[in-house]
Amino acid sequence: MDVPPLVASFTIALPDWVRDELAGVPEEIPSVEDRMALAHRLADRNWREGTGGPFAALVCERGTGRIVSVGVNAVLGSGVSSAHAEVVALGLAQTRLRGWDLGGEGLPEHEIVVNARPCVQCYGAVLWSGVRSLVIGVDGPEVEEITTFDEGPLVPDWAAQFEIRGISVTQGLLHDEGVAVLRAYRDAVDAGDVTVYNARSGA
Amino acid sequence: MDVPPLVASFTIALPDWVRDELAGVPEEIPSVEDRMALAHRLADRNWREGTGGPFAALVCERGTGRIVSVGVNAVLGSGVSSAHAEVVALGLAQTRLRGWDLGGEGLPEHEIVVNARPCVQCYGAVLWSGVRSLVIGVDGPEVEEITTFDEGPLVPDWAAQFEIRGISVTQGLLHDEGVAVLRAYRDAVDAGDVTVYNARSGA
Repeated sequence: MDVPPLVASFTIALPDWVRDELAGVPEEIPSVEDRMALAHRLADRNWREGTGGPFAALVCERGTGRIVSVGVNAVLGSGVSSAHAEVVALGLAQTRLRGWDLGGEGLPEHEIVVNARPCVQCYGAVLWSGVRSLVIGVDGPEVEEITTFDEGPLVPDWAAQFEIRGISVTQGLLHDEGVAVLRAYRDAVDAGDVTVYNARSGA
Repeated sequence: MDVPPLVASFTIALPDWVRDELAGVPEEIPSVEDRMALAHRLADRNWREGTGGPFAALVCERGTGRIVSVGVNAVLGSGVSSAHAEVVALGLAQTRLRGWDLGGEGLPEHEIVVNARPCVQCYGAVLWSGVRSLVIGVDGPEVEEITTFDEGPLVPDWAAQFEIRGISVTQGLLHDEGVAVLRAYRDAVDAGDVTVYNARSGA
């Protein structure tokens, strides 16, 4: 095979504006509500900046709230369809901590906080990441209804399946604030102001 | 926040040996069986090289078999838990074609060929990638039984859910050859010769 045309690596990067948005945010966020508020803020800015969908996540130490990484949906910016907020945040956290298992020996428990329930891809990404806790703002069916995104089929007992694997699930945190972010996005979509990145959505 | 400690990007790269393995492989592989045979070969070499689990995928143009990318499980090499073969192959293909939708306008139909049924994460990754065809070697429950990996919960009608979204599914291609690769891997695991990378597997 003529090897050179094959691409041998790809990189997923946070948009530049994230650095500005994090200015003034403390290194540790003890309150889970405050962690979620940051996720909502990042999700809101992400679609307004045109860098992806209205989704954000952060990985922190569960006990202290020390922020290990943040992620936003970076599909548009990276050109890679798997670059959802959870995949970005988890990949950045694992890169920072130099290992594929955030639940590995000697590490504190890690938590991922997401503004909306993970799609089926990110459901799996969370499962295999080593985090011990998942905190969700807006539930999946509501996300689909508001945004018209297809989140993919999850098993009905998806939350229990996390718990079986040692990952606790908290749902509905700052729910109304999360819904407001998604509704603002949807209004912009209806007005023709944003690019929708979800391939085959509902087709 | 003290921003510098936060990592702003991560990169997923193919192991160096892939280039050697592809030497002599034609640019186009017209037969789907031959595409699968390449996937099995890459999967087998991947665990033997110590660069990841026994999983590989390739993205090609469905009609001609022109290879757009190959991927192997790169969890160990990249330190990123989402770097399963499908995520790697799809990310590389999208990077090469400069877009997050492999089913976008003006593109030929794309196919992903994987040696084993995608786990729940990669199930979603395939859904959102824009490929129009998924070809599988070994089925999921058999993969779990042989390798002891947890592949995560899929809905019972997972294949129909692909079809609903315009993605055709072919199962059991070169099945026995695929099982042989997985069994060889399992034997090595039982002998204590390899690192298992799947966090919380069955725990």
